[in-house]
Amino acid sequence: MKFEPQYFEDYEIGHSYDTLGRTITEADIVLHAGQTGDFYPHHMDAEWCSTQGFGQRIAHGTLIIAVAVGMTAGAINPLAFSYGYDRIRFVKPVHIGDTIHVSVRISEKQDDPKRPGHGYVHEQLSVQNQRGEVVLILTHLHLVEKRR
Amino acid sequence: MKFEPQYFEDYEIGHSYDTLGRTITEADIVLHAGQTGDFYPHHMDAEWCSTQGFGQRIAHGTLIIAVAVGMTAGAINPLAFSYGYDRIRFVKPVHIGDTIHVSVRISEKQDDPKRPGHGYVHEQLSVQNQRGEVVLILTHLHLVEKRR
Amino acid sequence: MKFEPQYFEDYEIGHSYDTLGRTITEADIVLHAGQTGDFYPHHMDAEWCSTQGFGQRIAHGTLIIAVAVGMTAGAINPLAFSYGYDRIRFVKPVHIGDTIHVSVRISEKQDDPKRPGHGYVHEQLSVQNQRGEVVLILTHLHLVEKRR
Amino acid sequence: MKFEPQYFEDYEIGHSYDTLGRTITEADIVLHAGQTGDFYPHHMDAEWCSTQGFGQRIAHGTLIIAVAVGMTAGAINPLAFSYGYDRIRFVKPVHIGDTIHVSVRISEKQDDPKRPGHGYVHEQLSVQNQRGEVVLILTHLHLVEKRR
Amino acid sequence: MKFEPQYFEDYEIGHSYDTLGRTITEADIVLHAGQTGDFYPHHMDAEWCSTQGFGQRIAHGTLIIAVAVGMTAGAINPLAFSYGYDRIRFVKPVHIGDTIHVSVRISEKQDDPKRPGHGYVHEQLSVQNQRGEVVLILTHLHLVEKRR
Amino acid sequence: MKFEPQYFEDYEIGHSYDTLGRTITEADIVLHAGQTGDFYPHHMDAEWCSTQGFGQRIAHGTLIIAVAVGMTAGAINPLAFSYGYDRIRFVKPVHIGDTIHVSVRISEKQDDPKRPGHGYVHEQLSVQNQRGEVVLILTHLHLVEKRR
Repeated sequence: MKFEPQYFEDYEIGHSYDTLGRTITEADIVLHAGQTGDFYPHHMDAEWCSTQGFGQRIAHGTLIIAVAVGMTAGAINPLAFSYGYDRIRFVKPVHIGDTIHVSVRISEKQDDPKRPGHGYVHEQLSVQNQRGEVVLILTHLHLVEKRR
Repeated sequence: MKFEPQYFEDYEIGHSYDTLGRTITEADIVLHAGQTGDFYPHHMDAEWCSTQGFGQRIAHGTLIIAVAVGMTAGAINPLAFSYGYDRIRFVKPVHIGDTIHVSVRISEKQDDPKRPGHGYVHEQLSVQNQRGEVVLILTHLHLVEKRR
Repeated sequence: MKFEPQYFEDYEIGHSYDTLGRTITEADIVLHAGQTGDFYPHHMDAEWCSTQGFGQRIAHGTLIIAVAVGMTAGAINPLAFSYGYDRIRFVKPVHIGDTIHVSVRISEKQDDPKRPGHGYVHEQLSVQNQRGEVVLILTHLHLVEKRR
Repeated sequence: MKFEPQYFEDYEIGHSYDTLGRTITEADIVLHAGQTGDFYPHHMDAEWCSTQGFGQRIAHGTLIIAVAVGMTAGAINPLAFSYGYDRIRFVKPVHIGDTIHVSVRISEKQDDPKRPGHGYVHEQLSVQNQRGEVVLILTHLHLVEKRR
Repeated sequence: MKFEPQYFEDYEIGHSYDTLGRTITEADIVLHAGQTGDFYPHHMDAEWCSTQGFGQRIAHGTLIIAVAVGMTAGAINPLAFSYGYDRIRFVKPVHIGDTIHVSVRISEKQDDPKRPGHGYVHEQLSVQNQRGEVVLILTHLHLVEKRR
Repeated sequence: MKFEPQYFEDYEIGHSYDTLGRTITEADIVLHAGQTGDFYPHHMDAEWCSTQGFGQRIAHGTLIIAVAVGMTAGAINPLAFSYGYDRIRFVKPVHIGDTIHVSVRISEKQDDPKRPGHGYVHEQLSVQNQRGEVVLILTHLHLVEKRR
């Protein structure tokens, strides 16, 4: 983990990479319920889930968001900060034992009308499971300093 | 925690409520770093933070999202499921010892062109700290069954 | 989670309800060992357990007590506080993967000779597994304010 | 940690000892909320607590029970098993930073009318804080094999 | 857990004992990744591991060191403190579900040229799995007070 | 996190770098006690510690080892694996709130007489606190493939 300054101008639309994978475990779900207080039976009650259409426990949406964003945390850009997320969509459920990885792509750059020295970099995350199915998409907005 | 079926038609735009509060602790940040793998010094290095403008460790954005959404998990609507989030914005940092609560408001309802039997309910979350400052906003989209 | 004031007089003997279920996981046992420091082989050593009559790891008694009581934590009564427990009995072991739910019943009400403005409400918890077998019983005593 | 067989007859009424101490931390409370799903503001909301008579966050009752019982888990008696608890009473609140230790005393022995080869050993736990104030008492019942 | 003072002279070379066992779980690995920030796919990605020679997820080396040393933490010697470790060797991988125990042996005693009142006690730990295979060895050095 | 193959010949003696910092928290100690089962009062009892020479709770040695090694886990070398550690020494205690970073240096390279295609790379870790004091040193041995 290190600092690698990158200006707004240094980000290239279309630049993309894939993260390594991570298996979502029962322990992750138990810990996430514990962190958030969301003990809905969809996540915590294997018996009830087995009577539902989805058949088995589902990872919390916020768990997959948090893990996926964490998987993209590489070098630290001291010239950028996380501004927010747009259009987070849960496409398919993630179950215990699924292994996810993230495809990351710079999808857009925007000036910031209020802050002339900065611009927004849109980083699109597509989270996929071990069968190559997309389970989650989201756009991470970074506010990044421009070169003077 | 119980099931309370609520149809699309039962949601009223403008309906709102406030959750109770929760103090964000150092333990929450340590656990969230551990869940996500994001050990950026902004969250983990008190010494370095003390040399920065923000002065002290900042809670992960995904921690505040996950906790805030968890704080709104009340009765379970078996006719709805979480479709995604729109326009998540980090307005102010949350520090160790800050106490947050969430103001929730049904802000919009939309038909789903592809699924005539369902509609989208937009639930707007405004997360505030103990000084009444907004720290995070987001819109939670629920896909909800309609009455026949 | 919200406040719902309820006076001693408002509790009705015989009133009962069932909680939703929760699956007790290996992660729960590992975390409970970690919280309590109880690393007895009954909970932690799958090999040794397989040579014993009970055949597999057993959840800590205090884990099932804590989870079961937590499962009954619904609305907060600001006029009551938890006074203690009576007659906690471990009826059957809970193993990894068992799903428990709690049947709750107001079993008794008692005046408090020392505090005329208060009385004891006895809430009986019967914890059951997915086969409907009782695994734990306990009585939770609440000291509740009376109407003037 | 080792096995030390001890028959019913080997337990002496009045035998007593004190455990070492353990400081109850904010992390313990956060982890216990996460294990049990009890996020009541009494444990989690420092701001609200500061407006109440008790003034600051209180450890969950089940946390202190679980930790105290864990602190008494020394040598394993293969001839005994934990049968239950009687008369658990919360005498005083435990706050973050309090250090507890447990005074343990064999208080009673009883035959088991249904199981002639076994008897009950009552172990009385008195949990005290750093000021020597009793915060919790409970009686732990062990069902122990008799010598033939 | 108690204090049992033991002087340098009281340690006998060749003295040995075996600890009880503990099963290494998926939860242990998830928690250790969370504690250390080491999310290498060797520990976290079941899919990728299944394509490698070792076939399945491997426990972190530092997890096995920490658990094994913890398993040897019995009575506290107030006359000793942990000085360090020598020759830690990872002999075989530990996988999820393996049960380890530790064989402990006093292997050596050394004077401390700089501290005439103290000496080093070398405690050799050999960690074995359920098949009796050695998975880890290490030497724990204790600096212990001598009798005057 | 990515794969970056590096042969034995690619490692240069004297190559060095510093990691970023991480603050050791009370939560880290609580979690490490929970993972290892080591609840010695040196780590867990603030009251008792305040009566000792060291004055306050001390982080477990294995916690600092595990965190420090984790802090050096950067790019993954698929041609290397972790062989063990030599000469781990606890130089100074780490207390709650101390911030550590690691200075890493390739200190030595050795052929492996038994495996002609491999060699040992010695990586020396020096862990320092926020005052620049060395708290822990260790040598991490990597067995690395040679170019043919």
